[in-house]
Amino acid sequence: MAGRNFLFVPGPTNIPDRVLRSMAVQSEDHRSPVFSQLTFDCIQGLKDIFKTTTGTPIIFPSSGTGCWEAALTNCLNPGDTVLASRFGQFSHLWIDMCQRLGFNVEAVDCEWGTGVPLERYAEILAADKGHKIKAVLATQNETATGVNSDIAGVRKALDACGHPALLFVDSVSALASVDFRMDEWGVDVCVSGSQKGLMLPAGLGITCVSEKALEARKTAKAPRCYFDYLDMVNANKTGYFPYTPSLPLLYGLREAIATLKEEGLENVFARHAYLGGATRAAVQQGWKLDVCAKAPKWYSNTVSAVVVPEGFNGADVIARAFRRYNLALGAGLSKVAGKVFRIGHIGDMNECMLLGAIAGAEAAMLDVGIKVEPGSGVAAASNFLRDPDQVPAHMAQWIAGRNAA
Amino acid sequence: MAGRNFLFVPGPTNIPDRVLRSMAVQSEDHRSPVFSQLTFDCIQGLKDIFKTTTGTPIIFPSSGTGCWEAALTNCLNPGDTVLASRFGQFSHLWIDMCQRLGFNVEAVDCEWGTGVPLERYAEILAADKGHKIKAVLATQNETATGVNSDIAGVRKALDACGHPALLFVDSVSALASVDFRMDEWGVDVCVSGSQKGLMLPAGLGITCVSEKALEARKTAKAPRCYFDYLDMVNANKTGYFPYTPSLPLLYGLREAIATLKEEGLENVFARHAYLGGATRAAVQQGWKLDVCAKAPKWYSNTVSAVVVPEGFNGADVIARAFRRYNLALGAGLSKVAGKVFRIGHIGDMNECMLLGAIAGAEAAMLDVGIKVEPGSGVAAASNFLRDPDQVPAHMAQWIAGRNAA
Amino acid sequence: MAGRNFLFVPGPTNIPDRVLRSMAVQSEDHRSPVFSQLTFDCIQGLKDIFKTTTGTPIIFPSSGTGCWEAALTNCLNPGDTVLASRFGQFSHLWIDMCQRLGFNVEAVDCEWGTGVPLERYAEILAADKGHKIKAVLATQNETATGVNSDIAGVRKALDACGHPALLFVDSVSALASVDFRMDEWGVDVCVSGSQKGLMLPAGLGITCVSEKALEARKTAKAPRCYFDYLDMVNANKTGYFPYTPSLPLLYGLREAIATLKEEGLENVFARHAYLGGATRAAVQQGWKLDVCAKAPKWYSNTVSAVVVPEGFNGADVIARAFRRYNLALGAGLSKVAGKVFRIGHIGDMNECMLLGAIAGAEAAMLDVGIKVEPGSGVAAASNFLRDPDQVPAHMAQWIAGRNAA
Amino acid sequence: MAGRNFLFVPGPTNIPDRVLRSMAVQSEDHRSPVFSQLTFDCIQGLKDIFKTTTGTPIIFPSSGTGCWEAALTNCLNPGDTVLASRFGQFSHLWIDMCQRLGFNVEAVDCEWGTGVPLERYAEILAADKGHKIKAVLATQNETATGVNSDIAGVRKALDACGHPALLFVDSVSALASVDFRMDEWGVDVCVSGSQKGLMLPAGLGITCVSEKALEARKTAKAPRCYFDYLDMVNANKTGYFPYTPSLPLLYGLREAIATLKEEGLENVFARHAYLGGATRAAVQQGWKLDVCAKAPKWYSNTVSAVVVPEGFNGADVIARAFRRYNLALGAGLSKVAGKVFRIGHIGDMNECMLLGAIAGAEAAMLDVGIKVEPGSGVAAASNFLRDPDQVPAHMAQWIAGRNAA
Repeated sequence: MAGRNFLFVPGPTNIPDRVLRSMAVQSEDHRSPVFSQLTFDCIQGLKDIFKTTTGTPIIFPSSGTGCWEAALTNCLNPGDTVLASRFGQFSHLWIDMCQRLGFNVEAVDCEWGTGVPLERYAEILAADKGHKIKAVLATQNETATGVNSDIAGVRKALDACGHPALLFVDSVSALASVDFRMDEWGVDVCVSGSQKGLMLPAGLGITCVSEKALEARKTAKAPRCYFDYLDMVNANKTGYFPYTPSLPLLYGLREAIATLKEEGLENVFARHAYLGGATRAAVQQGWKLDVCAKAPKWYSNTVSAVVVPEGFNGADVIARAFRRYNLALGAGLSKVAGKVFRIGHIGDMNECMLLGAIAGAEAAMLDVGIKVEPGSGVAAASNFLRDPDQVPAHMAQWIAGRNAA
Repeated sequence: MAGRNFLFVPGPTNIPDRVLRSMAVQSEDHRSPVFSQLTFDCIQGLKDIFKTTTGTPIIFPSSGTGCWEAALTNCLNPGDTVLASRFGQFSHLWIDMCQRLGFNVEAVDCEWGTGVPLERYAEILAADKGHKIKAVLATQNETATGVNSDIAGVRKALDACGHPALLFVDSVSALASVDFRMDEWGVDVCVSGSQKGLMLPAGLGITCVSEKALEARKTAKAPRCYFDYLDMVNANKTGYFPYTPSLPLLYGLREAIATLKEEGLENVFARHAYLGGATRAAVQQGWKLDVCAKAPKWYSNTVSAVVVPEGFNGADVIARAFRRYNLALGAGLSKVAGKVFRIGHIGDMNECMLLGAIAGAEAAMLDVGIKVEPGSGVAAASNFLRDPDQVPAHMAQWIAGRNAA
Repeated sequence: MAGRNFLFVPGPTNIPDRVLRSMAVQSEDHRSPVFSQLTFDCIQGLKDIFKTTTGTPIIFPSSGTGCWEAALTNCLNPGDTVLASRFGQFSHLWIDMCQRLGFNVEAVDCEWGTGVPLERYAEILAADKGHKIKAVLATQNETATGVNSDIAGVRKALDACGHPALLFVDSVSALASVDFRMDEWGVDVCVSGSQKGLMLPAGLGITCVSEKALEARKTAKAPRCYFDYLDMVNANKTGYFPYTPSLPLLYGLREAIATLKEEGLENVFARHAYLGGATRAAVQQGWKLDVCAKAPKWYSNTVSAVVVPEGFNGADVIARAFRRYNLALGAGLSKVAGKVFRIGHIGDMNECMLLGAIAGAEAAMLDVGIKVEPGSGVAAASNFLRDPDQVPAHMAQWIAGRNAA
Repeated sequence: MAGRNFLFVPGPTNIPDRVLRSMAVQSEDHRSPVFSQLTFDCIQGLKDIFKTTTGTPIIFPSSGTGCWEAALTNCLNPGDTVLASRFGQFSHLWIDMCQRLGFNVEAVDCEWGTGVPLERYAEILAADKGHKIKAVLATQNETATGVNSDIAGVRKALDACGHPALLFVDSVSALASVDFRMDEWGVDVCVSGSQKGLMLPAGLGITCVSEKALEARKTAKAPRCYFDYLDMVNANKTGYFPYTPSLPLLYGLREAIATLKEEGLENVFARHAYLGGATRAAVQQGWKLDVCAKAPKWYSNTVSAVVVPEGFNGADVIARAFRRYNLALGAGLSKVAGKVFRIGHIGDMNECMLLGAIAGAEAAMLDVGIKVEPGSGVAAASNFLRDPDQVPAHMAQWIAGRNAA
């Protein structure tokens, strides 16, 4: 059927045309003397994205899931205990992986719609006088519920009691869209992937490891080979990889980072806040519905989970949106299956795209019988977007520049 | 700035991804024994698009404008008289070309917002007993005002008085989006281009000539060489071109035709009627504004010219839409400069794209002070699009198929 | 510098233009109802490539190395013993991985230039009455030395003594270029990747597992999660993946398989034999040099390692070829470092490409002082290629077809 | 059939990957406020390519042939006399166009294999005291015979007798590959196209006109519209076009010019001389055959026409090369049909590409029975290419840089 697919799942995200073009590359010798520059450019660019000077970015040919595994197997010994919290499908899956790989998880179950429980973490860590807990896991942005967590707060909880555990953060659906600060927050391993804020296809597991994590690796005895940090770190030093890297994705990564830097990383965050705000305006003020996140502090600027009214199934909205309007929304998973549909507002996005998606989601809801006021979502979002107080400074400047041109 | 450009000028139009991919071709020998198949496929495909079995499609490396010139110089003698009507910038420019090339134009000036004046044509032709008029020009879709004309009616006017003049039709912004019937309507030259309903970049002038036109060419003495039909017709017979053709555009043309055929040509027309109807619903019922076309019979299903209220300048809306929302609308040209802005709803388009553009145009109008009700355009368009009586049968079927999957 | 890079490393290989085009895709929802067809197409296509009806192809977002790891961790228990042989860098690295992951390796060291030692394998297996050996590893094509091994022979050795060990085959640089028969040879895990005979960028680990291997997985206790077969097998059943797959690579895989099938898999093998033969003709008859493979039975049809004369360094030839002629040759690795340079003749390749590379390699040799007769390599290769007895039947047919056109 | 097509016709030429990528663009509004920069970049870039500060480059959506027509119809009056010489198919076709468009041609017929007859031109111009000759036509590089002409010499002939005729030069297969100097040589119209030295697909007629030519246009009465310089010049001034331009080709043009400038225009010429020299070495020293050009001063550095021995048909070589080896060579046209085949060595080319083509052409000749020594062509070309005296300085520098890296 004619026309463009509207991709509003919270990943994979829309690929900018210039990034798509950059990936249309023939193969080349990944051990040639000229190849190393590409590696260096990617690694250096990622340092800026992770906001680190002392950390080491590593690019695995894998999905982000692979980087979860790498964090565990590189830094821990079999049977080690980790502290984790579960408040959505992705925080759950990381816990599940820990258990499958033979680690012991102290799991804090939280209401879905909330995030990392800072007070519980603080209590548990303070109580762990023997430092049995070797790593603390935190999901910065729970993609399943549209919940953002306070990573700086986790660091504070660790520091408050002088706990030496490593801090592992899943920033898969946050990095390069909302702020992440490797060094300032004392993160030891940050886990991410190419297909979210980095606006690429899936295929690159993107992680960053602290000096402390690399030090822990030296004695960690969990079996590992493909995901061993050291092979990567050693090969990357001279600009190469231990096994054949995916060249189109590396070229795309360099271009995507350049794109982000041209906009300015802080500006990218501001734009996500602006579009996230408009989405919530549509949901809450326009449609008179709730998002899954229980309080403003949990609101995610990359994905909003819209709670459908009692008696309706979110899956019907999603099916209708996709089949009727070529609009891809995200499903409710596990505990919130059927209860929500998700609008991803992450990555390469602007006002008209979002307004088209809001109009489409509204049409799908009306089609399945949900009584929302036609046009109300777009009206609320548009009012938000046209509010000069909401427009990010760099966008206002850019518009002014175009006006002057 | 992030996000996709919303292209809603009435050409060039959005290129489907599969067509874009098909054009990413290396050069090749255009005189090789395997090349001719591509030519044959394009020519045969165009016959179906033009709805002709006796006509001959010709593909010039040019814009559509070149095909205007080809029609005149191949079929006419210097100083010949043509009958034409002017009701917008593009019907005007064709007349202007006739005069610059030394032909004599009997020009009927009509109100902008109306189309080919069938009754006046009938009178003039009937009065032309000496058959001084050698060709009748008709612009099927005046892109500047969003006006559709009745080409079958022009044929009737010619036949009614047995006038032998050739019938030249500009279908640049109609072909492959609204119905065109070369044979049934007795058109002698149809002029079009690649960048509208054929969903390609500009660069191919696409025309179709009747046997009568080719016969006229034999004695026509207007100087011509680059645009000589015969060089093309002769070379095309064996699958080649008299000079190097633009290969990416030919590959794109083949793929675009395949795309149109997969949807079904009549279905493509139905989809344009559906999206055109939704656009007019937004303008008239939502925003309470007028389109430039004076009556439903003139409504174009490929472009709508929206009349801005007194005291406002359409150019300001366009500038705001582009600079603020990355939404490209069409300008008012010549007589309607400042009075209208145009929304192109032609080519590869669907509901969410259109709703996003309507929301964007509305936002731009609000920004420049035009008092439209926020959300009203999308509400009216969405109500139209969700009306089962409006949904084209093939789309309903397609949706049903996806529901079953 | 102007002109095309000549890529003659044995992977990554040249990507056909049609495959490159197929990968230029926007992102889409990998959980949509229409996505599953792509998965099914890839899995079914791979069954034909692996020549299996009972095996299960699995596509990991990883390099081929990841599939080595998957074979070990899915089918073995910690401390299990595997039988392996080392005769080049890649057979070495797999052994190394076994050891790093905590398995016990009975390693047979062979002269580099030979392949899997069938008689030694037979002796060792026959002697292993207690069936301590749980898996037998065999590298079908040792990329480092250009050596092909007899996998059917390994199966015979196992069967001869009724040994129940699993058979793991590394077919990274063989699959889809030289014959591989999963079912007939009783292979339990075949390991490959996207960037060799499948003519894609790196990024997909492509493996195929037998029912016996999946059965072994049920009780195997090696820790695994990312590379767990079951997650993949279960998700693939309905057409999905446990984590976000790399869409461009899947689209490319489908197109690459279609490309191979259009040529015919057996024909692809014949073409590789033909081009491999021409390469050896250049080396042996033209340049009067040796290949690393010690005897015709070891000759690889995907890569030839050329032994440079005493007193010269293969690395100098490679450096010269790349820096001076933009020709990428493969380096000698480990034991054969400096002693050889490698010409990959794998994947999307034809006569002119190969002749250009042979001419370039010859020029590079002359430049560094190796006394080969100018033109001798091309003359010998060309004589071979023009010999009607050497031309594969399908190519002869194709030429005849073009002659008739 | 597998592998890359070897494109060695003298146009269209190989498109560099980066240029191919640059053309994969969506459509956009060609009247937007941001579009004009692209136009300015292309026009300014072309000024450097044409070596002009006072001339005006114009880019027509057409083939180069269209620019032949534009030169005639913009600058001449019906019936005007032009001086031209015929020594190949393309110089012939331009003369033919003059006649078809109603101009009077004083045509000097020369032996094919020679070029513009400077002495005859001088005599004729000197004899034309009445200045009946309004324009002098010169084909800088006759693509059909591989003959280069001395354009500075034509200017001298005009100046010697103070003749005021305009100087029109066809540089289609020379511009951006061999030196062209608009201002220094006093050229009034230079005609070229996108698909040769500019390394793009066909589709852009690229021309440059002097102030004198634009002045002549003011009074010239030949009918014209599509190709009217003034419409273009006026629209271009503000960065726009009178009708929709082909966006991918404009983006490609900007990138191609950037590519040429990065290598350096003089360096590009040196590289063409180097590759042309190698080709002639293969033909003359290797194969012991002649090129069509009768003397070194006529040798073209963009295309060599190889004269096949008596009793053989060049068309057979070409057919064999294409059908058997996927190598596209150029045919002999008109007077030299069957007598030659042509090797284009123009555009984006390097040593391995050329050596592969020479090897392929040699194989094709052997296949049809021409007795050349196998390997002799590559040996001679390779010896030439490896001769340090032949390597262009910038390539030597580039190699040194890579060696140092």
